[in-house]
Amino acid sequence: MPDRIEAALRAALASATGPSAPPKLAAALSHAVFPGGARVRPQLCLAVAQACGDDTPQLSDAAAAAIELIHCASLVHDDMPCFDDADTRRGQPTVHAAFSEPVALLSGDALIVLAFEVLARAGVQAPQRLAPLVSALARHTGMPDGICAGQGWESEATVDLSLYHRAKTGSLFVSATTMGAMAAGEEPEAWVELGARIGEAFQVADDLRDALLSEQELGKPVGQDAIHERPNAVAALGVEGAVQKLHDILGGAISSIPSCPGEARLCEIVSAQAKRLTPVEFSRAVA
Amino acid sequence: MPDRIEAALRAALASATGPSAPPKLAAALSHAVFPGGARVRPQLCLAVAQACGDDTPQLSDAAAAAIELIHCASLVHDDMPCFDDADTRRGQPTVHAAFSEPVALLSGDALIVLAFEVLARAGVQAPQRLAPLVSALARHTGMPDGICAGQGWESEATVDLSLYHRAKTGSLFVSATTMGAMAAGEEPEAWVELGARIGEAFQVADDLRDALLSEQELGKPVGQDAIHERPNAVAALGVEGAVQKLHDILGGAISSIPSCPGEARLCEIVSAQAKRLTPVEFSRAVA
Repeated sequence: MPDRIEAALRAALASATGPSAPPKLAAALSHAVFPGGARVRPQLCLAVAQACGDDTPQLSDAAAAAIELIHCASLVHDDMPCFDDADTRRGQPTVHAAFSEPVALLSGDALIVLAFEVLARAGVQAPQRLAPLVSALARHTGMPDGICAGQGWESEATVDLSLYHRAKTGSLFVSATTMGAMAAGEEPEAWVELGARIGEAFQVADDLRDALLSEQELGKPVGQDAIHERPNAVAALGVEGAVQKLHDILGGAISSIPSCPGEARLCEIVSAQAKRLTPVEFSRAVA
Repeated sequence: MPDRIEAALRAALASATGPSAPPKLAAALSHAVFPGGARVRPQLCLAVAQACGDDTPQLSDAAAAAIELIHCASLVHDDMPCFDDADTRRGQPTVHAAFSEPVALLSGDALIVLAFEVLARAGVQAPQRLAPLVSALARHTGMPDGICAGQGWESEATVDLSLYHRAKTGSLFVSATTMGAMAAGEEPEAWVELGARIGEAFQVADDLRDALLSEQELGKPVGQDAIHERPNAVAALGVEGAVQKLHDILGGAISSIPSCPGEARLCEIVSAQAKRLTPVEFSRAVA
């Protein structure tokens, strides 16, 4: 599965960085996407597509790649000086640190565009599925409820914590599960809850990492939530409360998986993600 | 025609700024799109769609609106401190000046996403046309040849002037003519030259305006090309040479219009645009 994702991302980047491209911006796009992080969202997308039969693999791959490209774009923009002002990401210089602010801004823009282009290219294989897929990707990325909206809440004086997290982190996980199903020709509704719960778990785990890990362990600046006074589950519930919440959410995620041919395999994948989200450090912190 | 464009843009913005949206970002999106400039690209798109029969008006409107949303997004990002650092646009404060840098960055992102969402929503009316339309919009917006690439050339030490202008300004005009044809069910190839020539004319006119008009007349800071040492037709050809080039290009644009039912009306529209592009000031400058 990771091979399919990396191949789809490599093909997307190859098309965007052809010989007519401005070289720095082309290099910045590759820097933003490779080497990747855990590729959690595209793996979840493909896992759901496979659980639903994966009858058009190129479209499933495109959906997975598109979601990861949006995620990478959001990281590039979030790292910029007007947001987190982060110099490192995954232990590497961030795009604006390695290239420049203008190139980072354009990289994010071009990656967003590329996500839709990748979907459209594969959409010719199943034209009836394309409109719902593009709409879903847009809804979970843009306004009023996607990750742009989530980030937008950070500029507001008063924030509804649950609305904020649902948009900022949850929406791309919901896009992963629902678009995986749609790429395989299934209706998305039954897959919303799985994505929402995994997104919620991921946010709580991210809050715990930000509060507990060192910059070296995390590969990016820590304590950002406290510095920027951002809403955070650890601030709201304490470390122990946040760890308990994480366990509860992941339990709910697994039991929300709809009955389908690939149900057992998908449960395994989600359980493996759950283990990855709750590393020993958190238990240590609670003990 | 302007009514159709404003209505399509209003409907798009209404969906993006619903009650769950963060209020500042929602206000910023509206600020970026209304009141508009001349809406040249969407008018050109609709004019071509009408020349081709306009058999699916909602899809033509969506294509026109999508192109204008991409244009507005590019203005928001181009005005930001790391690019032009412009405080005014069309006589109004720019988005980052009126709101903030983070909100401006997110506004551009959300408008790009909204452009694709608008296309996808209308695409259910003619599913076979959606993939080519989304691909075309992405190609003319992103990398390696779209407006992002064009802007990216400004970060390079050496620039091919013609490649730079083709990507930065020409690409959205080519998207206007070709997507107008595609929305009406026609093949795009015959419409590439018209868009390319109008884009070229527009760039030369923009260079002339930047060199000759006052900040008050232009509604935004002037002399930006000279300040930022950007490639410019006036610097390359002189004012007289640039005005002559503008006339030649527009003549070629009109003669490139393919034979079609709405050919006469389209010629009128392009001629009217040509007049708008060559105001009295330029002739004065030459005299």
